[in-house]
Amino acid sequence: MSGERRRDPTTGDWTTFATHRQDRTFLPPADQCPLCPTRDPEHPTEVPRAAYDFVVFDNKFPSLTADAPQPVAPPSGVYDVAPARGATEVIVYSDDHDLKLADMPAERLARLVDVWADRYAELGRRDEVAYVFVFENKGEAMGVTLHHPHGQVYAYPEIPPRPMRELTAALDHFAAQGTCVYCDVVARERVDGVRVVCGNESVVAYVPYWARYPYEVHVTMRRHAASLLDVTAPERLRLAEVLRAVLRAYDGLFGFPMPYVMSMHQAPTDDGQWQHVSHLHIELTPPHRTATKLKYLAGSELGGGAFVNDTVPERTAAELRAVLERDRAPRP
Amino acid sequence: MSGERRRDPTTGDWTTFATHRQDRTFLPPADQCPLCPTRDPEHPTEVPRAAYDFVVFDNKFPSLTADAPQPVAPPSGVYDVAPARGATEVIVYSDDHDLKLADMPAERLARLVDVWADRYAELGRRDEVAYVFVFENKGEAMGVTLHHPHGQVYAYPEIPPRPMRELTAALDHFAAQGTCVYCDVVARERVDGVRVVCGNESVVAYVPYWARYPYEVHVTMRRHAASLLDVTAPERLRLAEVLRAVLRAYDGLFGFPMPYVMSMHQAPTDDGQWQHVSHLHIELTPPHRTATKLKYLAGSELGGGAFVNDTVPERTAAELRAVLERDRAPRP
Repeated sequence: MSGERRRDPTTGDWTTFATHRQDRTFLPPADQCPLCPTRDPEHPTEVPRAAYDFVVFDNKFPSLTADAPQPVAPPSGVYDVAPARGATEVIVYSDDHDLKLADMPAERLARLVDVWADRYAELGRRDEVAYVFVFENKGEAMGVTLHHPHGQVYAYPEIPPRPMRELTAALDHFAAQGTCVYCDVVARERVDGVRVVCGNESVVAYVPYWARYPYEVHVTMRRHAASLLDVTAPERLRLAEVLRAVLRAYDGLFGFPMPYVMSMHQAPTDDGQWQHVSHLHIELTPPHRTATKLKYLAGSELGGGAFVNDTVPERTAAELRAVLERDRAPRP
Repeated sequence: MSGERRRDPTTGDWTTFATHRQDRTFLPPADQCPLCPTRDPEHPTEVPRAAYDFVVFDNKFPSLTADAPQPVAPPSGVYDVAPARGATEVIVYSDDHDLKLADMPAERLARLVDVWADRYAELGRRDEVAYVFVFENKGEAMGVTLHHPHGQVYAYPEIPPRPMRELTAALDHFAAQGTCVYCDVVARERVDGVRVVCGNESVVAYVPYWARYPYEVHVTMRRHAASLLDVTAPERLRLAEVLRAVLRAYDGLFGFPMPYVMSMHQAPTDDGQWQHVSHLHIELTPPHRTATKLKYLAGSELGGGAFVNDTVPERTAAELRAVLERDRAPRP
């Protein structure tokens, strides 16, 4: 078996099998980093250049590929199998092994937003791709196997379960209210104010009213934009500014680089039927509940799908705001 | 804020807020274990007895309670809030601080199955309870805060997301095929055989065809039983035997006690409409992908809801079977 997807008939979800990944590179020392530039041609890295700005390449251990072969179908009805078609890309954020997103100038981060938009457009055009998912796993607590700052793009052959759940709920909301649920959430968060971490004229960041993780923050376009392709160049800079501020608040909160999962939710790429209910937002979910304790996903979350949060969104938002205010204060 | 649930309008899921839980007891030394019997009345534990068989009590740091007060409702439409009504119980498996499930005789484990059935029946009868969820988080890798072997029961005021997704898929399957999807899965796993870990005349354990975790095992009743209340005393012993064998295979696999989340899926308790599509099964999801490496849930799983598995179910099932065969072999 290699590169196949199997369907869970008891939920409808697909699992992707990528059995060559067990041997992938695991926390190499910094001087053997495969994402650093190739400074010595005798010892090439995965990037054959002496310097670079951003680099995008196919994951060396892909779980989805354009040409995954048709698997042997199971003989009878209850199970279903499909080729693991799609793409998995790596986006290296910089040739500096230590330059994480939070430490980049906003202008540079805005160019990364352009890279994300480019990958969304290009991968989304492929026949075998239905949904382009941009994300970053940061920190060993999130299972990161390479420290060099990088993100990933998975181009799935269908809309994955969590975005599909959001789209379905947004369709229901639209049918009942005639509005985009994210537009309504943004309006409400701005009126309430207590959960807002930061924002500008285009973008707002807040700990959602229903936060599942103590320091969960959503970075959302204020106006309805279904994907990065609807976001203008000035708005991309505004998005970068807000994202950067949130990441700096994270790193300042406990005094160490905060681990997190960052995931970007945009419109599916196969057809236009989702434009009115897709609303570009970035979900940041750090696992920490205190400086020394993690929130573990266990029985209630993994078995039940029901999250328990031990903190108050209004308070964690205030903590993150306080970090930004402290950093903005003039030094004595 | 205390003891409230807030609804995510972008998915329909509820988050439970339990803000007093940040200070809960965290990995105390064995001689201060709050789940051990009270051997010295001057130093009482949470169990006021010198010895016991099983103990069930309300979680000292509950996230759901019978009398959670009505929260202050948010002023406008997009957000919803509800009291965190329900129950969270702890089931201590034994007064022996070190007796884990895998090391209990099957007869004793069958009596624990009776305790689970009792809690399912009693909590399910309460007006404020719609779904009774029995689970165990085992091992520090799963965030366990007390080592004394114990499980938990959450009685939710509505059907939580993952069981609801299963029930919805099972309804769809029933509408299309006229059969219970779990009955069909059990039949298929028994015919295929390659993913079966062990079983007897009443119960079968298998790495599902679509396994999300490398060593995920489902322990499922062979005949249609909607909940433990439909399972006879002899069948409960058969269930205990199979569960015990799987847990022993886990512990033998890498030579250390395997961490896992165990969750039991049964019929919702509020009405009978789910009986034909609810099929009692226990899902075991250990986080290990090798002896030294964990499967981390990150971008694809948490942000996308899409699982990637680096192993082959047919192979991991064979590994678990080999442990059981080795243990059964006569010693030279």
